[in-house]
Amino acid sequence: MRAVDLIRKKREGFRLSDAEIGWMVAGIADGRVADYQWSALLMAILWRGMDDAETAALTDAMLRSGTIVDLSEVVGPKVDKHSTGGVGDKTSLILAPIAAACGVLVPMVSGRGLGHAGGTLDKLDAIPGFRTHLDLRGYRRVLEDCGLVLIGQTAEIAPADKWLYALRDATATVESIPLIASSILSKKLAEGIDGLVLDVKTGDGAYLPHLDDSRTLARLMCAIGSNLGKRMVALITRMDQPLGIAVGNAIEVAESIACLRGEGPADLTDLSVELAAEMVLMGGRADSIQAARECCRRAIADGSALDRFRRVIEAQGGDPRVVDDPGILASPRFRRTIEAPRGGFIHAVAARAIGHASMLLGAGRQRVDSTIDPAVGVILHKKIGQPVERGEPLCTLLVNEETQVPRAETLVREAYQVGDGPATPPDLIVERIAAPAEGILP
Amino acid sequence: MRAVDLIRKKREGFRLSDAEIGWMVAGIADGRVADYQWSALLMAILWRGMDDAETAALTDAMLRSGTIVDLSEVVGPKVDKHSTGGVGDKTSLILAPIAAACGVLVPMVSGRGLGHAGGTLDKLDAIPGFRTHLDLRGYRRVLEDCGLVLIGQTAEIAPADKWLYALRDATATVESIPLIASSILSKKLAEGIDGLVLDVKTGDGAYLPHLDDSRTLARLMCAIGSNLGKRMVALITRMDQPLGIAVGNAIEVAESIACLRGEGPADLTDLSVELAAEMVLMGGRADSIQAARECCRRAIADGSALDRFRRVIEAQGGDPRVVDDPGILASPRFRRTIEAPRGGFIHAVAARAIGHASMLLGAGRQRVDSTIDPAVGVILHKKIGQPVERGEPLCTLLVNEETQVPRAETLVREAYQVGDGPATPPDLIVERIAAPAEGILP
Repeated sequence: MRAVDLIRKKREGFRLSDAEIGWMVAGIADGRVADYQWSALLMAILWRGMDDAETAALTDAMLRSGTIVDLSEVVGPKVDKHSTGGVGDKTSLILAPIAAACGVLVPMVSGRGLGHAGGTLDKLDAIPGFRTHLDLRGYRRVLEDCGLVLIGQTAEIAPADKWLYALRDATATVESIPLIASSILSKKLAEGIDGLVLDVKTGDGAYLPHLDDSRTLARLMCAIGSNLGKRMVALITRMDQPLGIAVGNAIEVAESIACLRGEGPADLTDLSVELAAEMVLMGGRADSIQAARECCRRAIADGSALDRFRRVIEAQGGDPRVVDDPGILASPRFRRTIEAPRGGFIHAVAARAIGHASMLLGAGRQRVDSTIDPAVGVILHKKIGQPVERGEPLCTLLVNEETQVPRAETLVREAYQVGDGPATPPDLIVERIAAPAEGILP
Repeated sequence: MRAVDLIRKKREGFRLSDAEIGWMVAGIADGRVADYQWSALLMAILWRGMDDAETAALTDAMLRSGTIVDLSEVVGPKVDKHSTGGVGDKTSLILAPIAAACGVLVPMVSGRGLGHAGGTLDKLDAIPGFRTHLDLRGYRRVLEDCGLVLIGQTAEIAPADKWLYALRDATATVESIPLIASSILSKKLAEGIDGLVLDVKTGDGAYLPHLDDSRTLARLMCAIGSNLGKRMVALITRMDQPLGIAVGNAIEVAESIACLRGEGPADLTDLSVELAAEMVLMGGRADSIQAARECCRRAIADGSALDRFRRVIEAQGGDPRVVDDPGILASPRFRRTIEAPRGGFIHAVAARAIGHASMLLGAGRQRVDSTIDPAVGVILHKKIGQPVERGEPLCTLLVNEETQVPRAETLVREAYQVGDGPATPPDLIVERIAAPAEGILP
């Protein structure tokens, strides 16, 4: 086999066999295939696409490039959630303790954010002392002790994906549905899980804004994960405006804690409960989605979910007092309130622009090597459908570096649209996809 | 500017500006742009194409990446020829001495062959002692003394093209018309020429087999060269069967000498004269193409073209006796004659298969670093249209390494088609393209 022949084959629109894809991925580690050959292949894949079988073969090859964690000795159903990323999306911090409180084990390996959407790891880093780097023994121990564990991708998990992702990022080959699907699944399926709940975002603030693309990605991931023996469910959810009212890192942790106390915004709480309920149903801890939802609501009401969060923070070296006093989280030097230029109803709060403003203030990454300021971000006082009077606060910028304020202010002003008539908030959940059949794990 | 943004722009089908293309090419030398980024861009260019202005900008940027030879102090019209490559195509060795004998200066920088078609440089290497590496002073001196000079691409000429060509070869991005056009022209326009005659091949043995593609390439190169101030003419010529009867290196030199003696095969002589006549017309050494053809035929008949060849061989360190005694060229250890399996008329002699057989015997390169055996190749005894009796020789393999004979024999047997009815040899010249207007150079 020669890399140049396989690149040509894909370039001409033919499908690559499992063996050919496996050979190309194995060639990363042993140096048979150069990075400049892989980047040409990535562009050819973006151009010509890959069918489901090719995507499954790529997923499997990247999965096998590293360690596949064996959690079979940890007793209980192991279910994780993955979100394709959105602005203000902190559901992982909320649903993992909820699902754990309902008896589902949640071994969660998360990523950092890039661009306008924040990453779970960056948010966890805002908790003083919290360690997201655990070795495999620590990972198992925290999972057994707390029912959940929250870590970052280690060097052992899917190293081929790590290498290919960096290459895609530098060569404008990120936006390919088969490449996105295989990248997500190769990492998640290495966690040792029995099943995975997917939150596939659609709309302005999603990486794939078009519903058709989100649906294709959701179906593809469900099919591949299912083929590889995992139970899979996907919810396609709207990401037109930010989720909840906090966009940043420390403030998203604080908002997550509020949710776990039953005091969070309705949209964030509802989506977190819905995703957690899917995990509980998938894990066989409830007989119906209705029963699963009730279990999740109860875990909030009786404090057991918050208690799980407190325990996992402590187990991973963080300061558990944060759960009772979010005031110990980092706070910014300045606050700048943006007021409504006119009265009316909020018609739009463009998620991408809000995310971009938050990134400019230091809460997100413009480049892979950017550092994150946990204290900064944006707090939304108004969301779609709410009435507003002229001069009333729309949002507040949390600022440490004043130089970025003018650009951030322009972005958030443009993000908000105030209209005359009433407006309805968008439905959170667009549709649910399960493959091949949802139900109780063995 | 960021490479990833420019890759994305092309990937999405937008055109790149002159400044953007210049930035990407300059980024090769200063390391701003990585090879894996360029290869992704190359695949995006192959996918989305480039318009004439983009191709001109790429040509210009690659041209300026190195030395542009200044021959303005060498008095006389300077015209070169470039062929897109074919099997048995040795016209350079014939037309350069002819054009020089007619008063046109021919400063020719040639390449090596790769794949099924041989390169002029490999053929020149078959002449004992001939040096294709001259410095710029030597290049000028030989041109002034002999009226022609035949060298290989130096490190100073279009280094960006050299780098990109190697990358295209390894990433299956060779077959893009804008990339082919800019690669050819960036090297040729660095030679210090006033005009260029192009021989764009079409048919089975050509790199671009389809006439539409050959026409597109010819028009594009004429337009770009013309924009950069060069007089340009292209002949589109058929490459269905090999040109002449010799395919190899030493035997192609011998056949070229036969042509210069007026004793060569008609197809090879006719095409060499036609291309040389275009050069003579372009160089203002004749008033019409008819007068130019007569001048070229006369240069063969009176021995002046052969004399030019003898002089340039001597000036470049070669053994000039080869002109009078081609027997001093390398000869093979074995000859294997392939006989006709039936009687009839020759309907096809597939150029690509003959070229491939010759390459297997050692006359061409399978890889960039392969070494060439000057003595081996294929001699054709029959060409399209000729009658043949059963058992009569079709061709002879010239062999040093017997292990490759079975595969080569299979290829040449498949290349020959013998049919019942008569067959007409294909017209050599399909069409002529000139841009913007042919004529006398200033």
